[in-house]
Amino acid sequence: MAENQKIQQIDCTKVPEPTLRRLPWYLSNVKLLKQRGERFVSSTQISKEINIDASQIAKDLSYVNISGRTRVGYEVDALIRVLEHFLGFTEIHKAFLFGVGSLGGALLQDSGLKHFGLEIVAAFDIDPTLVGTHLNGIPVYHSDDFLKKMEEYDVQIGVLTVPIEIAQCITDMMVDGGIKAVWNFTPFRIRVPEDIVVQNTSLYAHLAVMFNRLNFNEIK
Amino acid sequence: MAENQKIQQIDCTKVPEPTLRRLPWYLSNVKLLKQRGERFVSSTQISKEINIDASQIAKDLSYVNISGRTRVGYEVDALIRVLEHFLGFTEIHKAFLFGVGSLGGALLQDSGLKHFGLEIVAAFDIDPTLVGTHLNGIPVYHSDDFLKKMEEYDVQIGVLTVPIEIAQCITDMMVDGGIKAVWNFTPFRIRVPEDIVVQNTSLYAHLAVMFNRLNFNEIK
Repeated sequence: MAENQKIQQIDCTKVPEPTLRRLPWYLSNVKLLKQRGERFVSSTQISKEINIDASQIAKDLSYVNISGRTRVGYEVDALIRVLEHFLGFTEIHKAFLFGVGSLGGALLQDSGLKHFGLEIVAAFDIDPTLVGTHLNGIPVYHSDDFLKKMEEYDVQIGVLTVPIEIAQCITDMMVDGGIKAVWNFTPFRIRVPEDIVVQNTSLYAHLAVMFNRLNFNEIK
Repeated sequence: MAENQKIQQIDCTKVPEPTLRRLPWYLSNVKLLKQRGERFVSSTQISKEINIDASQIAKDLSYVNISGRTRVGYEVDALIRVLEHFLGFTEIHKAFLFGVGSLGGALLQDSGLKHFGLEIVAAFDIDPTLVGTHLNGIPVYHSDDFLKKMEEYDVQIGVLTVPIEIAQCITDMMVDGGIKAVWNFTPFRIRVPEDIVVQNTSLYAHLAVMFNRLNFNEIK
């Protein structure tokens, strides 16, 4: 276990973000091959399925601690295990969610996140009709209780689903309280100290790209 | 209206994706400035707020049909109106959702999407306990009824939240039925004909990046 962790940590320091974003594609593809009864898989096979260059796949997989056999490829079970571990999906990372509005409430309902390593253990809001209730079994506390709850729970991640006008102020509060990574679902670009991780997932930015491309295709 | 549309369409053909992803940041920032009572805003001001180069912001905004005044900048109300229109948030785009599982169900609950131009008008699944019910007022139909419902509703967008093993097959069904854009929430890389728009939003890939960076910061 200690050795595994060491290997993972050394690898971690050099993984580019595009690789990290592609690895889950390979994982889901290999899972599918496993369901079909395959025991071995090559980067060429994955390449055919998902239309990414085989050499790119081999290069991406070189960051992960697994080696394939010539002409046989990677062992499917091992590749799934190693990828899931490498991507952090096998370990539970506890998170707080801030802002139980429409999107925040929806994320609390999504138990699927837990299968990928994220467990939202509590949520915060100031709405008196929400504070003190549970959503999908997750307690909603008043934002004023955040520091107290940081002592109770072992949490490093904050999920940000508040209105844009308080996005920065809630981020500052999180960071001051000891949160190390912010998963920002707001369309607002938050500022954080250098050692804090920010992952932006703006559904609205994705919608804008989709609408634009759709419109572009229509007039072609 | 017809002229507006023409202007937007001409602009559309040249907007790079990074620009389209940054424009919603400017929009939310300008909305915030409006709340603070500002009437005019310059790219330098936005730059200070969100830490993006002012020249980049000016360049991005040059794709949008608005011009600022020297030393005064852009009129806040006009900039919000033009950006919202340009990004497609003011027009309702109807969508079908496929797969009412944990994430699919959560997205049906998120009424916020409608404020950004996406209205999920119906959902499809094969689970007999779901088919025939409503979630957040949205009807759930059997997947077999998809073609029939395509005739009833004026829908171009499909939201994909099915298990990975049927992601490709459901995509093919959508495309055959006339869907023009797929918003893919699965971690599976789907294949589509060239004229079909795909927007990938894999929450799990974002989680993988966040976990990796968090781990990296810890060992620094």
